[in-house]
Amino acid sequence: MARRIGLLGCGRIGRVHAASIAANPRAELAVAYDPFEAAAGEVAAQHGGVAATDARVVLDDDSIDAVVIASPTPTHVELLTQAVRAGKAVLCEKPIDLDLARVDACAAELAGAEAGVMIGFNRRFDPSIRQVQERVAAGEIGRLEQLTIISRDPAPPPLSYVRESGGLFRDMTIHDFDLARFFLGEVVEVTATGANLVDPAIGEAGDIDSAVVVLRGREGALASITNSRRATYGYDQRVEAFGSDATLSVVNQRPTSVLYSDAGVTDVAAPYLNFFLDRYAAAYAAELDHLLDRMDDGAAPSPAFADGRAALVLADAALESLRTGRTVKVPA
Amino acid sequence: MARRIGLLGCGRIGRVHAASIAANPRAELAVAYDPFEAAAGEVAAQHGGVAATDARVVLDDDSIDAVVIASPTPTHVELLTQAVRAGKAVLCEKPIDLDLARVDACAAELAGAEAGVMIGFNRRFDPSIRQVQERVAAGEIGRLEQLTIISRDPAPPPLSYVRESGGLFRDMTIHDFDLARFFLGEVVEVTATGANLVDPAIGEAGDIDSAVVVLRGREGALASITNSRRATYGYDQRVEAFGSDATLSVVNQRPTSVLYSDAGVTDVAAPYLNFFLDRYAAAYAAELDHLLDRMDDGAAPSPAFADGRAALVLADAALESLRTGRTVKVPA
Amino acid sequence: MARRIGLLGCGRIGRVHAASIAANPRAELAVAYDPFEAAAGEVAAQHGGVAATDARVVLDDDSIDAVVIASPTPTHVELLTQAVRAGKAVLCEKPIDLDLARVDACAAELAGAEAGVMIGFNRRFDPSIRQVQERVAAGEIGRLEQLTIISRDPAPPPLSYVRESGGLFRDMTIHDFDLARFFLGEVVEVTATGANLVDPAIGEAGDIDSAVVVLRGREGALASITNSRRATYGYDQRVEAFGSDATLSVVNQRPTSVLYSDAGVTDVAAPYLNFFLDRYAAAYAAELDHLLDRMDDGAAPSPAFADGRAALVLADAALESLRTGRTVKVPA
Amino acid sequence: MARRIGLLGCGRIGRVHAASIAANPRAELAVAYDPFEAAAGEVAAQHGGVAATDARVVLDDDSIDAVVIASPTPTHVELLTQAVRAGKAVLCEKPIDLDLARVDACAAELAGAEAGVMIGFNRRFDPSIRQVQERVAAGEIGRLEQLTIISRDPAPPPLSYVRESGGLFRDMTIHDFDLARFFLGEVVEVTATGANLVDPAIGEAGDIDSAVVVLRGREGALASITNSRRATYGYDQRVEAFGSDATLSVVNQRPTSVLYSDAGVTDVAAPYLNFFLDRYAAAYAAELDHLLDRMDDGAAPSPAFADGRAALVLADAALESLRTGRTVKVPA
Repeated sequence: MARRIGLLGCGRIGRVHAASIAANPRAELAVAYDPFEAAAGEVAAQHGGVAATDARVVLDDDSIDAVVIASPTPTHVELLTQAVRAGKAVLCEKPIDLDLARVDACAAELAGAEAGVMIGFNRRFDPSIRQVQERVAAGEIGRLEQLTIISRDPAPPPLSYVRESGGLFRDMTIHDFDLARFFLGEVVEVTATGANLVDPAIGEAGDIDSAVVVLRGREGALASITNSRRATYGYDQRVEAFGSDATLSVVNQRPTSVLYSDAGVTDVAAPYLNFFLDRYAAAYAAELDHLLDRMDDGAAPSPAFADGRAALVLADAALESLRTGRTVKVPA
Repeated sequence: MARRIGLLGCGRIGRVHAASIAANPRAELAVAYDPFEAAAGEVAAQHGGVAATDARVVLDDDSIDAVVIASPTPTHVELLTQAVRAGKAVLCEKPIDLDLARVDACAAELAGAEAGVMIGFNRRFDPSIRQVQERVAAGEIGRLEQLTIISRDPAPPPLSYVRESGGLFRDMTIHDFDLARFFLGEVVEVTATGANLVDPAIGEAGDIDSAVVVLRGREGALASITNSRRATYGYDQRVEAFGSDATLSVVNQRPTSVLYSDAGVTDVAAPYLNFFLDRYAAAYAAELDHLLDRMDDGAAPSPAFADGRAALVLADAALESLRTGRTVKVPA
Repeated sequence: MARRIGLLGCGRIGRVHAASIAANPRAELAVAYDPFEAAAGEVAAQHGGVAATDARVVLDDDSIDAVVIASPTPTHVELLTQAVRAGKAVLCEKPIDLDLARVDACAAELAGAEAGVMIGFNRRFDPSIRQVQERVAAGEIGRLEQLTIISRDPAPPPLSYVRESGGLFRDMTIHDFDLARFFLGEVVEVTATGANLVDPAIGEAGDIDSAVVVLRGREGALASITNSRRATYGYDQRVEAFGSDATLSVVNQRPTSVLYSDAGVTDVAAPYLNFFLDRYAAAYAAELDHLLDRMDDGAAPSPAFADGRAALVLADAALESLRTGRTVKVPA
Repeated sequence: MARRIGLLGCGRIGRVHAASIAANPRAELAVAYDPFEAAAGEVAAQHGGVAATDARVVLDDDSIDAVVIASPTPTHVELLTQAVRAGKAVLCEKPIDLDLARVDACAAELAGAEAGVMIGFNRRFDPSIRQVQERVAAGEIGRLEQLTIISRDPAPPPLSYVRESGGLFRDMTIHDFDLARFFLGEVVEVTATGANLVDPAIGEAGDIDSAVVVLRGREGALASITNSRRATYGYDQRVEAFGSDATLSVVNQRPTSVLYSDAGVTDVAAPYLNFFLDRYAAAYAAELDHLLDRMDDGAAPSPAFADGRAALVLADAALESLRTGRTVKVPA
């Protein structure tokens, strides 16, 4: 029997989840909720289930086994809390919230029940990244000494989004903070530098668009994260795990394997997969499978609520480092 | 409204088509036919529709718009003929038949109606190969002078299959003959060499397992096809279109983008996509879309019956060249 | 003490050898001979030694240990014969001669002494090709089943050169015939196809400019050679040794390791090393070292006169195959 | 007429310069000086000139046009000062000195004449790096926003060397500081992190062996430098210049272009050029050519004394940042 899933939020990322649910034989879309009727209706029409403009249609329906929270960040905590109380499995998009105090209050209120909430750090489910992490964890490269993450978006989001985003670190780098933790375990120190180079309007909105953040893991490894809000050549998603014995990398991916050569250039490759919908399509599917597996076996999902919180702590530490020009110790 | 499709044959390739049909929102699997009840039942259970052990269940059902013929080669002509007569759109797996006389008799009997039959030369629908063909056709490389096809399977099929296959040229190279025609247009000359290197049992069965075939296109271009029934490193599918101005290639593809380096090796890449189910997954989906598009607009599909015949003519010419040690002119 | 070398011929390839000699601490250029005084003088001025317009200045000088024959092909046999008689070590550029009868007459006259003559098949000394050949010979790929050689020049030579060249097979493919023998040992069968696609004037001169030649080695392996007189993207020199256990390839090389990406293209690589002077610079140096080593240890050089003859036999067989449209057995 | 060069110091790097001088037709090695007679004698015997154990043999010889200072770092300032006073052109290995005060005293004493001293930052002369820098400077990538330098040695130097080296930043990273300046112009801010991961003995000697340093250029660009004293897979020398319009990179280089594939791996590449003698062979030759060009035209060489000083200032700033955990402003 397919698990009945309620989707909370039918924007861009909500549609990704709707498609994953529809394509997974173990799941079916029961309700597509969005305050905008058109959005909810469109998703239901395309991927199944009924449309709703009231989240209670999902939360109050006992036949719904799980919810995917893909609504705007400020609504996450409220929906997550209610869904946990309603006894549903939860997959919540990152970040849990922009305010650490609110995250902690949520955990206090749920009194441990939040441990079962899965956070949508999709990169952990990318087949290439996951394979590298598993091989590193298995000791294949010896001791992990340096982790180099390069993560650049093809183009900046709209300014209206930037203003509500919580800033580069909480919005974009948070994926890389989680990725660093995926490889390093806990991070003890954050040193951040940033700049406004891509678009002056982003600076005027009080944010940066370019950054290099250095992390120190508890075992001593150094990780660097290089971010930009814009890469003309496409979505740039690279990871290199440098070890005492060997090195494993994930390089960029392309939709075709066509090469071109002429009198001026050789072996010109196709453009990269352009953005997360394409680059992480398999990851979104695997992420949902993980949720379904955990619902089946009752074990705790990973990444979990605590991972969502930890990434936010690193984002806050990076912001503090950026403001003060100092390396910041991460509270245990 | 989704097109209702009848699947004739539920073996390995039949299941590929069943999955394509089930995943395509424009189509649905109406009936899965196979003389083996278990096979038909399994496919219907997984991909929808009802199971049948009598092909008439498909052919006599007027609600079925199209059939996909994925049964053993000797049954193709009969099923294809009946399906055309029943007014259904037809996608028939390659080869139409191993015997050119039978193919011609079929065409004579259908008196032109066979022109609407689509033949399953999947490679024409691979996004990389198709892009290269379109760019070549658009003149991007100038005049096409040399086409280099390397096509090697990961491992030989069972001997029982080899014995019924019609030989390497009709069974395996036929894809490459069609690919050559896709790029060159008509072929006027075939020169074939072959050897039995992979497994002596294949030689004892009267077949070769390794070959280099050279074709001359009507515009003068030379094409070479290099085949082997076994490549230890996986499914090897490369095409290089060498032109007077530039060159376009399709290189092998991998499921991940992981690289590994240590004291002995650098940038070790992941294994290739191992066989046609993985390598041509997108091609099978696009092939079905092409059939559905042609059903919608009423235009003739491509590759069509005549393309299936032409590839068989080249296979026969290659066999004659192999036997005689002479270049063979292809009958117009 | 450096070996004193006489250079016979100061054209393009003669200058390559002059530079190799000057750069090798074990050798010095004693005399640069060329019937054109300016050519000889220029080479001597740049690389040392005296200039001469009479070859006897070299042949009669007992202090000269070895000669490098880099004169026009029709003079090879005469100079080689005299140099051997004068007791000098000889490195002779390919081909020995365009006429097999003349090659055989030369051997008859020298009565075995020709065995000590080294032929300048430079590719055997390329570090990448040599490494692959050695690893294949050591059994690293299992049984060698298919050898794929792609060899394309950046641009055709002048028509005047084409007319005197003996044709594509004896002039250009001869390198590939030797390369095939380097990997396969003796070749028993030749099947050639060719075309005039690059420049109609080459066809009017009675030659082809594009070819695919298939060889069968005595152990059964198939080799294909793909040639063109012109590749817009540069000098194309690839070899792939496909074996029962593994495959080793030599891919093209570049002078820098720069990559470029922008909104339209990714990882655009630098142009290839453009022609043999650059691509095989290390090979020419290693070739000379081999000659010097053999002079030191008295062993026979390789490739030797017999290899030069064997490659010419394959060129003649290919021409016959091209003319007759038949596979040609190579005389033992 | 070849320039007569005096070599001061015949250790490992001195021998690299001796070989460059001997191979350059515009230069000749006049005197090889080293306090160790055997070292001086060996170099003179192999590359020409006379051996000397007293530097005055070089400095007092008016026929000597230029000196290359390749002696231990503590002797640089003294030899450089005397050579400039003796009117000789000077190429001095990096770093000028480990002590900025001493560098400034040297400049004060030479009162401007030090401007003509060339510093041996070899990477500026690597054909790939130079090409990228020139293309960036020509505006090909738009505005340079992020520079990513990865620089790892194959193996740590002996501990005795580490103890005298002035530490990772002054000894190894100094090349990367210069490289950053080559691309960014002046650097205004340094943020350094480091760790002792490779060998505890390096930590006991008071040094680090792993580092990530972030620089901010005066135009706002961010540069990151990732260093390790050990990379099992060889000498890792990569540069990526990320711009507003495009990106240019230098990737690692190999001595051959051999690829290997089998049942477990595909396209295994050859090991990288293992260390600076191989990787930067062309750079050392071009560096000497630059010195000779400047001697011919009388213009100031680049990189010059001031560049040597500026890189040392960055190393000192990085050390301070490492000690304090703060971003350090670079004094103008």
